[in-house]
Amino acid sequence: MASADICPPGPYFPEEIKGWHGYIEWEDYPEKRAEAARILGLHHDQFAHPPEFQLEPLPKTNPVLEGVRWKQYHAALGETLKHIPKESWDTVMKEKAADMNHVLDFPYNGEPPKARLIEHVITPNELHFVRNHGGIPRIDEDAYFFDVGRLVNNPKRITLKDLKNEDIFPRQSNIVTIQCSGTRRIEQIALYPGDGDELINAPWAEGAIGTAKWTGVSLKKVIKYCGGLKPEAQHLEFVGADTYFKKGQVSNYSVSVPWRKVKLNEVLLAWEMNDKPLPRIHGFPLRVVAFGFIGARSCKWLTKINALAEPSMGVVQRKEYLYYNHQIGKHNTLYSSGFSIQDMPVSSAIMAPIDKDVIVHDGKITVKGWAYSGGGRWPQRVEVSPDGGSNWYEVPWQQISKKYYHAWRLWTIEVPCDAEGWLGFVCRCWDNSLNTQPTFVRSAWNWDLHVTSSCHRIYVYSVNRTKPQTAKRLKQLTEKGISLVPITLPLEFNLEDDDTYLDAVRAQGGRDPEE
Amino acid sequence: MASADICPPGPYFPEEIKGWHGYIEWEDYPEKRAEAARILGLHHDQFAHPPEFQLEPLPKTNPVLEGVRWKQYHAALGETLKHIPKESWDTVMKEKAADMNHVLDFPYNGEPPKARLIEHVITPNELHFVRNHGGIPRIDEDAYFFDVGRLVNNPKRITLKDLKNEDIFPRQSNIVTIQCSGTRRIEQIALYPGDGDELINAPWAEGAIGTAKWTGVSLKKVIKYCGGLKPEAQHLEFVGADTYFKKGQVSNYSVSVPWRKVKLNEVLLAWEMNDKPLPRIHGFPLRVVAFGFIGARSCKWLTKINALAEPSMGVVQRKEYLYYNHQIGKHNTLYSSGFSIQDMPVSSAIMAPIDKDVIVHDGKITVKGWAYSGGGRWPQRVEVSPDGGSNWYEVPWQQISKKYYHAWRLWTIEVPCDAEGWLGFVCRCWDNSLNTQPTFVRSAWNWDLHVTSSCHRIYVYSVNRTKPQTAKRLKQLTEKGISLVPITLPLEFNLEDDDTYLDAVRAQGGRDPEE
Repeated sequence: MASADICPPGPYFPEEIKGWHGYIEWEDYPEKRAEAARILGLHHDQFAHPPEFQLEPLPKTNPVLEGVRWKQYHAALGETLKHIPKESWDTVMKEKAADMNHVLDFPYNGEPPKARLIEHVITPNELHFVRNHGGIPRIDEDAYFFDVGRLVNNPKRITLKDLKNEDIFPRQSNIVTIQCSGTRRIEQIALYPGDGDELINAPWAEGAIGTAKWTGVSLKKVIKYCGGLKPEAQHLEFVGADTYFKKGQVSNYSVSVPWRKVKLNEVLLAWEMNDKPLPRIHGFPLRVVAFGFIGARSCKWLTKINALAEPSMGVVQRKEYLYYNHQIGKHNTLYSSGFSIQDMPVSSAIMAPIDKDVIVHDGKITVKGWAYSGGGRWPQRVEVSPDGGSNWYEVPWQQISKKYYHAWRLWTIEVPCDAEGWLGFVCRCWDNSLNTQPTFVRSAWNWDLHVTSSCHRIYVYSVNRTKPQTAKRLKQLTEKGISLVPITLPLEFNLEDDDTYLDAVRAQGGRDPEE
Repeated sequence: MASADICPPGPYFPEEIKGWHGYIEWEDYPEKRAEAARILGLHHDQFAHPPEFQLEPLPKTNPVLEGVRWKQYHAALGETLKHIPKESWDTVMKEKAADMNHVLDFPYNGEPPKARLIEHVITPNELHFVRNHGGIPRIDEDAYFFDVGRLVNNPKRITLKDLKNEDIFPRQSNIVTIQCSGTRRIEQIALYPGDGDELINAPWAEGAIGTAKWTGVSLKKVIKYCGGLKPEAQHLEFVGADTYFKKGQVSNYSVSVPWRKVKLNEVLLAWEMNDKPLPRIHGFPLRVVAFGFIGARSCKWLTKINALAEPSMGVVQRKEYLYYNHQIGKHNTLYSSGFSIQDMPVSSAIMAPIDKDVIVHDGKITVKGWAYSGGGRWPQRVEVSPDGGSNWYEVPWQQISKKYYHAWRLWTIEVPCDAEGWLGFVCRCWDNSLNTQPTFVRSAWNWDLHVTSSCHRIYVYSVNRTKPQTAKRLKQLTEKGISLVPITLPLEFNLEDDDTYLDAVRAQGGRDPEE
């Protein structure tokens, strides 16, 4: 079904603010939300089902998934949102690296290729992962403002010009890693399927993490500028300009962080990413960067900040990014039975070699990856096991990148490896609080498939050429011009001549005992 | 490339014996073997590669794999073998159940559906698995004979009529399970790809095992009839009428068993299967049944029995069905570095429920399966774990079928199950020698992917309706007419209203500590 079949003819929900393209304010307009819900209800039976990709092999396309239903939702609401999916993709093409793995076309979700993610401690903007929940509003810098309201003493509207005025606000730059709680979700899916959320729980690999130098103003200063909070205020809610859909209802993307976090100057309102203006896909003109928290709290295209007594009742904060016990699933889930993912735990990943690689080596294999811990904790020690988790080698301190309170560390280690055939390489990180990672994916599997922080495990096929029989076989292959890979393609030559075979078997006492 | 492109015009390798259709004797004709090798060499670059199915998801077709290359080999050798693949398939259609899972079209490999395998302790002929290595020769009963030779005192040619003459040979019937060493290979493939043999190492599930009442004459009596063995004879080689290919060479299928095994009357020359004439696909007119051994030794369409001092130098005995250590793979394999699989070890499988089933229950789940041990040992105890292998429940003796020295036992057990969500159910068997199964597939993975005898593990999604919140959700689903499956399809209704949510979160002390 083409999107055009759904898009209504009328001028539904026109753009409301000059210079704010693709933005509809839903927050304070219950009658608009009701009308949108009515329209979505009308088309209910026409919307595509979410694609089944958990119980089936993942498509090998790039984008991996399209997001047809989400496109249809946007089309159904008329002119303002209809073109948003195409504009989102155009922005991807313009702002992101050509070799991104596009996990989901729309809303755009993409991660860099494994090898490129660990080329730089500070991720280049075009390689930084993107996890959007809707379209990319196009807001002119000059027309841009955000409102600070509810439980603040002096509600204010603040423009970007105000915010950049260093006479009013001190500027702050921080190296901060942002991580999506979906990182490595593909491992949970491979083990057991989980919640097939309406907004596709994208099948991320290890790349939904990135590090940048973010520049802006601490939210604490903005609250101070608004006369501080009323006594009962404990949380700051952020509202984005993107439109979000959940079970037939619309809203703007909204999430919250505790005031306690803000007071530490760990929540930044940022307009620069790596000394460049924020790319549109990353939230231009202004976004939140909540250090050490799940990426979902770092709201993009910020339109409002609301001081609240309790966490946001927005659907993203309340109904998503919840961490459930093993016993919870479609048969019994309630939003209140999961806890809210805020601080990210310690985690790590092997980025080279990659799963199923065939490695010819001389008794040592080089392994590289990243390690991260949220909440202001830092990776203190990284260990790699070449034997499935029995023995662990420590990454030498010389081979792990600089410590930050809020950023990852990249590491490399040469691991002694005698064994051949399929080996399980595993990595784990210990942070400065002595937290380490759960052992197996099973240990931390959860219904919403969030936070795959278990020890990262890959399998490689080890070929140790210091072994005489291996050296002999490699020589045979070279002489015959035959490749070792794929290992599943049978060798065409006889592996052992009759006499050698018989000598060897007889030397072993024959196939059966003599007596 | 159509087979016709390869088939030579000439009358290569005509049928040699009247009434023996599709049979070429290679054994004693080195010049014919050389000519066949020459022809295969000519077409070498035209033959299809073995299909890549280990590093890719398996096709969902039935037949799963076609065996194009093996068809081409047959076509290349001219008239006698050209039509063999089609005749093989026609025989499948005629002799096997309509709902077989055809793992490989040609050479034919097929297993019954899981549920049907455990319907009967004695497997109906049409449901018995088939693992052929070539075509199905069509041999007239009246024209049939086999030769006994080499290290016997009086070499003889014996007809089927002779063999059925009870004045010469006492008749013997036995209930015997035959198991292919490839049973459950799919689990090894899923873990790590292994040898991509030229003759496809078929991706079997749990059904490459079957039990029948076999009737015929003990090979021991036949050897006695031939005046017994010369002193140096230790092994009996069987040669089949099917043509086998390996690395550009042809031969008849040939394997051997030790004389020690024969002396126990555990090697039968059988012409009846479950009181019916042997089906063509199972070896008509006469086949070997080697009790408790790997199925590969039970040679079909028997043409010769050779008494030998050492095991058969035939490629199947010498270069295949070898059991390698973990360190062995394409980089170093030698035939002499694996040991020969003869006796089959203790094993078992869960046949119901099946992997990924969603089970709604009241605190107990019924599990069914088979258990088997080779070498004359019998399944003594079967245990099932509902928790991934931590706690084990014993199948009550009333719920396990009769003991035989050489056959499986079918079992059923109701396992207490409180837990919900994804559960690992595991079964294992202890035989009378106290052997039990390796814990993980990894424990016994081997390059040729044989004998997947590790504890059999499936994952089911448990929904325990004795739990109040589960009962409530099931009622909601029924009222709304929504199916619980697939569990990956998101629920369209709100899981919890705002007030209930807030009450529950506040009762838990809020999302964050108060102080």
